[in-house]
Amino acid sequence: MSDIDVLVSEVGPRDGLQSINTIMSTSDKKKWIKAEAEAGVREIEVGSFVPPKLLPQMADTADIVKYAKSLPNLTVAALVPNFMGAKNAIDAGVDKMCLPLSVSETHSKANLRKTHDEVLEEIKQIAEYIKTLDKSERPKFEGNLSTAFGCTIEGKVSEKDVISLAAKMMELGCDEVGLSDTTGYANPTQIKRLIRLLKQEVGDNNLTSMHLHNTRGLGLANALASLEEGITTLDSSLGGIGGCPFAPGASGNIVTEDLVFMLDSMGLKTGIDIKALIEVNRMVKTCLPDEELYGFTVDSGLPKGYSEGGWGAN
Amino acid sequence: MSDIDVLVSEVGPRDGLQSINTIMSTSDKKKWIKAEAEAGVREIEVGSFVPPKLLPQMADTADIVKYAKSLPNLTVAALVPNFMGAKNAIDAGVDKMCLPLSVSETHSKANLRKTHDEVLEEIKQIAEYIKTLDKSERPKFEGNLSTAFGCTIEGKVSEKDVISLAAKMMELGCDEVGLSDTTGYANPTQIKRLIRLLKQEVGDNNLTSMHLHNTRGLGLANALASLEEGITTLDSSLGGIGGCPFAPGASGNIVTEDLVFMLDSMGLKTGIDIKALIEVNRMVKTCLPDEELYGFTVDSGLPKGYSEGGWGAN
Repeated sequence: MSDIDVLVSEVGPRDGLQSINTIMSTSDKKKWIKAEAEAGVREIEVGSFVPPKLLPQMADTADIVKYAKSLPNLTVAALVPNFMGAKNAIDAGVDKMCLPLSVSETHSKANLRKTHDEVLEEIKQIAEYIKTLDKSERPKFEGNLSTAFGCTIEGKVSEKDVISLAAKMMELGCDEVGLSDTTGYANPTQIKRLIRLLKQEVGDNNLTSMHLHNTRGLGLANALASLEEGITTLDSSLGGIGGCPFAPGASGNIVTEDLVFMLDSMGLKTGIDIKALIEVNRMVKTCLPDEELYGFTVDSGLPKGYSEGGWGAN
Repeated sequence: MSDIDVLVSEVGPRDGLQSINTIMSTSDKKKWIKAEAEAGVREIEVGSFVPPKLLPQMADTADIVKYAKSLPNLTVAALVPNFMGAKNAIDAGVDKMCLPLSVSETHSKANLRKTHDEVLEEIKQIAEYIKTLDKSERPKFEGNLSTAFGCTIEGKVSEKDVISLAAKMMELGCDEVGLSDTTGYANPTQIKRLIRLLKQEVGDNNLTSMHLHNTRGLGLANALASLEEGITTLDSSLGGIGGCPFAPGASGNIVTEDLVFMLDSMGLKTGIDIKALIEVNRMVKTCLPDEELYGFTVDSGLPKGYSEGGWGAN
């Protein structure tokens, strides 16, 4: 990613679609992913390798991965909850797999139906399996610490638990770890402190990504705080679609269009054409007529005379 | 303000109410201001001393000022567009007057119906008049640079113009200057750069306040950037009510409840009881049944187990 400053990782087709009632058709998903890749988005989490009976919205993920792999300049990511999901993801050809481990064990049991030890066992199996693969077919394997900033069931989450679970994930063979504010509880001070603490444990290069929600309106402030601590990958969802279906009141990924507008206007290169991205929002809206998309930049439009790459940067 | 870290200056009764159709009754305004002061808000811009035929919503401002002055621990601020307004504000007994000067001269003509020179002449008259007053009856006089980060009519605004107009305001006798992102065009990089440049010109102590809008969702990120540059007063509007009626598409002050949640959860003292503030939102909603209030924290509620003064601060 030498030509960009920040990698915006679109999670709408996974985190967004899994938490709404509408099941988007496979062809609409492909249209969305293609349009976003063409707008310059370099990484998209296209689905989740979970049993279709749990999340029917994700039943076509293998097909979507294969399609997305045909698009140029795109890292194709998917969520995997366990070893079985990881095997399916690898068979489908993903470039990157994310496995969430909820720091709140109560949330882990509700979300993945597993204790910490059971999730860590899955991670171990996946890491061992990956080692047997040729480098060419080996996806990147990220362990993601969800509810890292608080839990809607347990409340406050211990930073020590975040650090020790992250350390275990790295020991077991994850390529890197990421932090998720699944519940939208985080604030900029907490974000900065936890990133610093965790980097001390796992090393600067092994914590590069953040998954933030905008539940209490602090999403972009938390994104800014993350950037200031050297984070280079930020997850977001087109039209703010989605959230965590098992964390009540925790809807609201940060909005891709608003995030890209912020980064672009700050003069940070994302590779994304903000005007084309706004068009993608309009297209996805027509595919999801019964769902509410949200976002400020799409509603208000770009500033008058705005030009790509930092209208306001000087 | 030695016992607080950040002064949240509520502008809803002025910037909010002037830009909606409903005319709030004087008694409802008083209820609102009283409730917010009781929740711990230390400064409220209670109205605008403009001709009632231009803004009938503000016709009772003198009455509101007198009432607000009876409340303990409250700085009573008002907007004044000119010398006549300032005289009325001083007669009513305001603690602080803000006079907006739009850096975009086109916007200045549309908003205040005056050129830069004409506005500066008003500032000069006000400053000279203030000097004739006893210290005890002399309000603080802030010159506010509106459209400082871009204009919906002119587009990009020159930073040199911001600096030179600020310098003129200080020369003419303003006690301090403030920056307004009237149009919601600002980004954190621009915010930081302009604060630094302007402080070099007017001195650290003469730029302490920012007025930010959330038009493109960047309001709290811009607030964070402002805090990082030493800003200690942030304007916001309860329920996000308001914006600038003469800047199309520029609605949306930052939301007081979300701002206070951010500051409080960061461990920054505001003196405000966030739970009481959320109750004020509910009360104001009943006074404005036809208007849309918005804000994330009120909708989502506080985090589980949240306690005042930085649940997430560690």
